[in-house]
Amino acid sequence: MDQPTRQFLERQRVAHLATVDEAGTPHVVPICFAILDQTVYVAIDEKPKRSGDIQKLRRLRNIAANPRVAIVADVYDDADWTRLGFVLLRATARIVEPGEPEEHASALRLLRGKYPQYVPMALEERPIIAADITSVTTWGRLAP
Amino acid sequence: MDQPTRQFLERQRVAHLATVDEAGTPHVVPICFAILDQTVYVAIDEKPKRSGDIQKLRRLRNIAANPRVAIVADVYDDADWTRLGFVLLRATARIVEPGEPEEHASALRLLRGKYPQYVPMALEERPIIAADITSVTTWGRLAP
Repeated sequence: MDQPTRQFLERQRVAHLATVDEAGTPHVVPICFAILDQTVYVAIDEKPKRSGDIQKLRRLRNIAANPRVAIVADVYDDADWTRLGFVLLRATARIVEPGEPEEHASALRLLRGKYPQYVPMALEERPIIAADITSVTTWGRLAP
Repeated sequence: MDQPTRQFLERQRVAHLATVDEAGTPHVVPICFAILDQTVYVAIDEKPKRSGDIQKLRRLRNIAANPRVAIVADVYDDADWTRLGFVLLRATARIVEPGEPEEHASALRLLRGKYPQYVPMALEERPIIAADITSVTTWGRLAP
């Protein structure tokens, strides 16, 4: 991806991750993310609603069933629609378990560097989503 | 859906729409939307990138192939993560053509009421996405 696209992605604090279940039903949630080379990393910082089993989170079950995901980062400005812009990434997602120490540790360092909120959280024990980018689409204004 | 959930949705100016193509690949874009009873309406206000044929827009092609969609509206606050919240809607989408005058006109009136930006646009001639809500999931803080 080109430099303005990468810089746009790096400036955004929140993006949206779409996954699909085995029946073709989509799911979409806001995410915090960090990007390294061609991979987007997303921490799992929530507890599942009904059980202690983190594998039951819908986004993780969907990725296990279908690794194709889409991530969009965008700017919305209600006062000036000429300023709208987004970057849409298509990607193949993997789950990086704490047992894979090198990539897990480097992803966590990256995420904590962008989000100090993650520093006190016990994310060492949780999986991280790694989404390897396969295509990049841009729309609208990406300049700051 | 309950009143706080509906009010949260009505306050949000932007949401994100996830669709899926026939091969199970997701797509997600920011949307402006308005909600009436159990239906979310989304205007098509963009020209397709490569052709004058609006039916080529990915979200419309996906809905034709698979009407299951997900829409999330959320609040992100980088300074205070206790204020995060979202409403995730699962829905079945339909395309409302200009040829269906009653629903098209009422949806357009609703969208222009929420977004004055739509008033000068020639949306009478464009389809509108209608997503009939099938389930509602909430997370975090929905209060203003």
